[in-house]
Amino acid sequence: MAKLTAMREFSLLQHIYAANRELLASNHALRAPIVVPPGDDLGAVKLGRQIVLAGVDQLVDGRHFRLATTPIELIGRKAITRCLSDCAAMISWPFATLVAATLPPNFGDDRANALFDAMRATCDQYKSPLIGGDIAFHSSSEHPLVISTTVLAYPGLSEPVMRSGAKPGDSVYVTGALGGSLQPNGLGRHLTFEPRIELAHKIGMQCGESESDGMHAMIDISDGLGRDASHIAEMSGPPSVQIVLDAAAIPCNPGCTWQDALRDGEDYELLFCVKRALTRIANTTMHRIGEVVVRPAGDDQRVLVKHDGKMLGADDLGWEHHS
Amino acid sequence: MAKLTAMREFSLLQHIYAANRELLASNHALRAPIVVPPGDDLGAVKLGRQIVLAGVDQLVDGRHFRLATTPIELIGRKAITRCLSDCAAMISWPFATLVAATLPPNFGDDRANALFDAMRATCDQYKSPLIGGDIAFHSSSEHPLVISTTVLAYPGLSEPVMRSGAKPGDSVYVTGALGGSLQPNGLGRHLTFEPRIELAHKIGMQCGESESDGMHAMIDISDGLGRDASHIAEMSGPPSVQIVLDAAAIPCNPGCTWQDALRDGEDYELLFCVKRALTRIANTTMHRIGEVVVRPAGDDQRVLVKHDGKMLGADDLGWEHHS
Repeated sequence: MAKLTAMREFSLLQHIYAANRELLASNHALRAPIVVPPGDDLGAVKLGRQIVLAGVDQLVDGRHFRLATTPIELIGRKAITRCLSDCAAMISWPFATLVAATLPPNFGDDRANALFDAMRATCDQYKSPLIGGDIAFHSSSEHPLVISTTVLAYPGLSEPVMRSGAKPGDSVYVTGALGGSLQPNGLGRHLTFEPRIELAHKIGMQCGESESDGMHAMIDISDGLGRDASHIAEMSGPPSVQIVLDAAAIPCNPGCTWQDALRDGEDYELLFCVKRALTRIANTTMHRIGEVVVRPAGDDQRVLVKHDGKMLGADDLGWEHHS
Repeated sequence: MAKLTAMREFSLLQHIYAANRELLASNHALRAPIVVPPGDDLGAVKLGRQIVLAGVDQLVDGRHFRLATTPIELIGRKAITRCLSDCAAMISWPFATLVAATLPPNFGDDRANALFDAMRATCDQYKSPLIGGDIAFHSSSEHPLVISTTVLAYPGLSEPVMRSGAKPGDSVYVTGALGGSLQPNGLGRHLTFEPRIELAHKIGMQCGESESDGMHAMIDISDGLGRDASHIAEMSGPPSVQIVLDAAAIPCNPGCTWQDALRDGEDYELLFCVKRALTRIANTTMHRIGEVVVRPAGDDQRVLVKHDGKMLGADDLGWEHHS
């Protein structure tokens, strides 16, 4: 059921993205031409000479947190930081945030105020203030808390860094340890992670924007290393590419295996593809975990993992919503 | 219960707005200083030399539409046009849209696709393309369809037109007939209305931005003429103002009384305050329905209605969510 739900959502989003590609053909008729259509971490348009990025994300009780057991401040924080992580993934600076929440009728005004205070405090901390909000109460107490967050950002480099630029010969890097974020021994990392906004900009500045050896593609790891790597591979090309990961090189959180790292998700580390060799940036180790190769004709596997001399398919090792 | 819910939502939003005023004191520290804080139809920030407006609105089954009896295309349309009406109210041009939807698990992929197709078609029609989306399925079929829409816009005049500029001596105008939009004899106007974006710009161009006789304040009528007029009166000043409406001058839809016009809401006509005399703009009658006066000391009534030689308080004659 959980897996089916995630797959349905993905296929519905694909339906939206497909139709939007038609729209790009009539881009000239728009007030602000589309620079990045939906399907990346954020969408983007060009307003005059200014590129504006925007994205929306939902946090649903029972899927992304458990209202009964999670401090309200951490729920509010996560509703914002998840979106800020998307800004990091496109090497962009968030500058404004909007939230809409539907609350159960028995939620209580004190909790509602605490929730919005936590969201606003998080927005302020990351200099992306709340400029709009909407609140509705569900009519039945059976209805879950849902928070929908929209973030606006502008590029840190001259263009947003997309998922679609990976090239054969690139190295694949990740900015930190993966796995177990949602597990009881995960210490609530999925609630307390730091969105990698500053680090993303330092990586972007160091790598630059050269078509040959600059930053080619970036994503934040929310669905899981396997699935997020497959998003990069699927959207990149031509030529069609495949990402080959080395299981032994994947940095894992304590108590996690490389399989957990591939599958768990909600790590909010950055995964990126660049030709050059990196070791440390801003006191953070850049873990080289694989490489981008040309996808062989007739092979539709996007992500492979080398382990113990074998090659394993890893496209779907992603987070399936633990509800 | 319905009234209580709306009042709670309003008081919670007030809590957010109050705290945001503190933030304006530290505006210089932001990447994009706030031009319009939350509490108006849209918020706005200044990004370089470009003002960017944004707002979020939710459409909830059982409150803003009834899924069981409403064509899916009209639900998708309304999810977008409600937000576009907010753009009209600030005399701004929408340029991009994002939607997040939580669907009941039994919603069906065909209906989900039809819903998103309708939203995208409406976005395209108004040149405000979908650049982002998120979909989640509720875990229980008891959970209602909720659509959260964010719209981005830029000013049509040099600054956004806010609710807060009404001045004593202004005339109060409305752009069309009011009342009955949600009633069975309302012909579904709350689903099929045209957001007054083009008309708003023509009114703005004709009135101009002069501090003395230019456009002073505008809002779209969603909560009801009484409550929306009180939003203008409450946010305007100094000096504190009162809006005095003439019941006989209020244009009413067929079968509606002036009381319906004050109370019903969901009309999506524009209500605005300007010193000059207007009759018709772009083939649309500008109905002069009242005037702005100085609010007498000790009188906290924001809106009065003259009827039959009496003065009646009308602050709270707004739509109370018909659930």
